[in-house]
Amino acid sequence: MNLTFHTPSGIEGESMRIIQQELDEMGITLEPDCADVVRRAIHTTADFDYAKNLVFTPGAAAAGVAALRAGTPIVTDTNMARSGINQRACTQLGVERFCYMADPEVAQAAQANGTTRAVAAVDRWAEEHPNAIFAVGNAPTALLRMCELMEAGTLRPALVIAVPVGFVNVVESKEAMLELCNKLEVPAIVAMGRKGGSTVAAAICNALLYRTFER
Amino acid sequence: MNLTFHTPSGIEGESMRIIQQELDEMGITLEPDCADVVRRAIHTTADFDYAKNLVFTPGAAAAGVAALRAGTPIVTDTNMARSGINQRACTQLGVERFCYMADPEVAQAAQANGTTRAVAAVDRWAEEHPNAIFAVGNAPTALLRMCELMEAGTLRPALVIAVPVGFVNVVESKEAMLELCNKLEVPAIVAMGRKGGSTVAAAICNALLYRTFER
Repeated sequence: MNLTFHTPSGIEGESMRIIQQELDEMGITLEPDCADVVRRAIHTTADFDYAKNLVFTPGAAAAGVAALRAGTPIVTDTNMARSGINQRACTQLGVERFCYMADPEVAQAAQANGTTRAVAAVDRWAEEHPNAIFAVGNAPTALLRMCELMEAGTLRPALVIAVPVGFVNVVESKEAMLELCNKLEVPAIVAMGRKGGSTVAAAICNALLYRTFER
Repeated sequence: MNLTFHTPSGIEGESMRIIQQELDEMGITLEPDCADVVRRAIHTTADFDYAKNLVFTPGAAAAGVAALRAGTPIVTDTNMARSGINQRACTQLGVERFCYMADPEVAQAAQANGTTRAVAAVDRWAEEHPNAIFAVGNAPTALLRMCELMEAGTLRPALVIAVPVGFVNVVESKEAMLELCNKLEVPAIVAMGRKGGSTVAAAICNALLYRTFER
């Protein structure tokens, strides 16, 4: 064991140094506005595929940082993602974290409308926080419902983090969201392909949160 | 989009079918006692590396299922992993989920003893639940402290799920835990190498939980 690094912050710094070194060895150069986000996604998964999978609309990370500095809330599609977002950083910035997936009202609305909880939760997001940062790590149906509401004009996110993981509808839902965000000029960070997840959604939020404390 | 599958359970079944089909195409045959656990780890990450990374001590999954049927609690090293473990399944089995990482007493103990919260949390686990199922998805230091207490005889897990992710001390801590579990005949499921994480820890727990409802 490398006993030089035995504090959590020391381990994290050394991990980021190893990640950057291996990216250099692979000949991968990250865009300056995206580098910390990509490194943190790799840090969370030990999966260097995220150096290629993660697509940013122009200025998306900077837009996310600005939104967080302004206290924009973060809405997630899983309690897992919500609980992975750094609470202390959010508290300092006055950023609230929401997830309505386990809300009894959302379950009732889903049953009443014959739809999924993911769809009912997005409808609730649009009512409560139409301009939030939305971090979706699980439900492609949430992304698809978001697309409908964004086209209808009732949802206009400060940033979309579209990183659901999976094998059915996932690839297509992320492609649809990226295309729409480009069309509507909504900032978006999207994990193309099958990979993603709640930890990746939380890691991207945390990278942006930590950037607000730089300078 | 494949609109044949638009319910959560339909999507999950189709996802598992795709995963098994691709494993077949890769010429990978999973051990019967491990297959559902491995498929669920892949389902959670879309990363087929878990078909090779996950190592089971003999009968480990069956031991975990038996422990869950007996109502053995699950202790995790992150609230993220804890919240990813299926609450309804746990409630039906009388299985409690614990995570002491954010406990103020753990933080105080860490400060008083000049150690990390991960180490202080493991000491608390050993006091409160020495025979629990321990699912570690984040902190290699938690695994190392567990090894010390297992050698001292104060911690004797029903099952160790050792799947921290990362770049510093992670590979070594998992190798040490696997070796010790083999020596002490403690059932263990270990993700060899750098990969793992809270979602993987939760996915392994869920695979075992769902197996208790079969037959």
